[in-house]
Amino acid sequence: MIEHKHTLRVQYPDTDKMGTVHHSNYAKYYETARWELFRSIGISYSSIEQAGYLLPVIEMKTKFYKTTYYDAELTVITKIVGMKGPRIFFESTLYNQENELLNSCDIELAFVKKDTWKPCSAPLFVLEILQKYV
Amino acid sequence: MIEHKHTLRVQYPDTDKMGTVHHSNYAKYYETARWELFRSIGISYSSIEQAGYLLPVIEMKTKFYKTTYYDAELTVITKIVGMKGPRIFFESTLYNQENELLNSCDIELAFVKKDTWKPCSAPLFVLEILQKYV
Amino acid sequence: MIEHKHTLRVQYPDTDKMGTVHHSNYAKYYETARWELFRSIGISYSSIEQAGYLLPVIEMKTKFYKTTYYDAELTVITKIVGMKGPRIFFESTLYNQENELLNSCDIELAFVKKDTWKPCSAPLFVLEILQKYV
Amino acid sequence: MIEHKHTLRVQYPDTDKMGTVHHSNYAKYYETARWELFRSIGISYSSIEQAGYLLPVIEMKTKFYKTTYYDAELTVITKIVGMKGPRIFFESTLYNQENELLNSCDIELAFVKKDTWKPCSAPLFVLEILQKYV
Repeated sequence: MIEHKHTLRVQYPDTDKMGTVHHSNYAKYYETARWELFRSIGISYSSIEQAGYLLPVIEMKTKFYKTTYYDAELTVITKIVGMKGPRIFFESTLYNQENELLNSCDIELAFVKKDTWKPCSAPLFVLEILQKYV
Repeated sequence: MIEHKHTLRVQYPDTDKMGTVHHSNYAKYYETARWELFRSIGISYSSIEQAGYLLPVIEMKTKFYKTTYYDAELTVITKIVGMKGPRIFFESTLYNQENELLNSCDIELAFVKKDTWKPCSAPLFVLEILQKYV
Repeated sequence: MIEHKHTLRVQYPDTDKMGTVHHSNYAKYYETARWELFRSIGISYSSIEQAGYLLPVIEMKTKFYKTTYYDAELTVITKIVGMKGPRIFFESTLYNQENELLNSCDIELAFVKKDTWKPCSAPLFVLEILQKYV
Repeated sequence: MIEHKHTLRVQYPDTDKMGTVHHSNYAKYYETARWELFRSIGISYSSIEQAGYLLPVIEMKTKFYKTTYYDAELTVITKIVGMKGPRIFFESTLYNQENELLNSCDIELAFVKKDTWKPCSAPLFVLEILQKYV
């Protein structure tokens, strides 16, 4: 298994009139952290698209435990927890600087061909790397 | 039970370099449709905040069946499927003009006090209306 | 000259912790209204891209006179004020329901070829329509 | 005069179906860089709001010279070029890793009281610091 740590800061436009982070932004934080995990093991998400593949999100289960605020420094922990055919499964969690769990998300993505959006195996150069970890 | 229909058009900044709608935007479509359902039964979401309450999202389970494109006219069906203490449960689905199911989301929100973020019952003027439907 | 009126409602994620609309969103309101102007004269922006062209923004001068709030119903007035080679000039203004001027923007866009991003004349089917108005 | 350098990476949802960065996002990049400049001289933007002030944008003149792409590492140069009454003037420019100028923006903001949105002088703790640089 692989586990990756990414830190980010809440930006002003991420907030809404509740004074906290709008719920749609957590998906963006998780996405950024996911591709940083990939980068850390030698895969840039861009290289996947350049090879003719896309990796759209298929399912997300998000739990919102605690909210957060402008300028907070947050940590995203991203784990790859499995692969099955075209599908790849991530568990992501978000913590504040007091190490409180703010949000968690189980995310399933699927490799598809860029031109047809048909599900397919991951490209070989990705598989070879991922198989070391999953 | 109450079921509400809202139509919207995909805007250019909702898209990403895949050429389709970025996955974080579905939460925004569902939110807009949810408050239009409320408006249709005589509750404006603003009036809830003005009364000293907020209604943050607590949990979302989203399935992405099919993607969609710039300028598509979409229909969101929003249902209130239950209430329990401070919590209120919605089922939302998104369809394209060919009536294909694009996306579905089970969404749980909770009434909280604006000043403390403590869970609480819905304000009376909301409860009185919602009890007719739930 | 052509002048077009588009109405929209401020959505929750358009707001920020100031309680008002985040300044980056006005560009989105103007864009939506601009392509609705185009649609009203028989040009869909999608058809421009399908013909192999893009219409990126080249310059924007935005003045923020007055802010606005969640759920406000706003009116965008969009005018095409000129064309010159590949460039097309818009004047956009945003009003609230009290008819107060909230925001104005002079926007310049340029037709470019989709594959090279080189500036070029508008496609003929667009020129033929626009020449009636500019 | 003060000049500050901030680097950032283009995220996936910043892109649109043109394959490049949506024009509304430059305002967000400039905002993040602006408050990092403030942080670098000992002012957190949060502390301004906590002191009862807001600093909304009053005017922006943006020129789009060259576009940019997903995952690009960009540098924002932010300069404070003047203050006048409640107003503060910034010049911001955005460069890619090849040091090409992508975008420039003259931005004017104004200090206002949080409760009334009336223009006012900057709070003293901000003025004392800014006067060293402007």
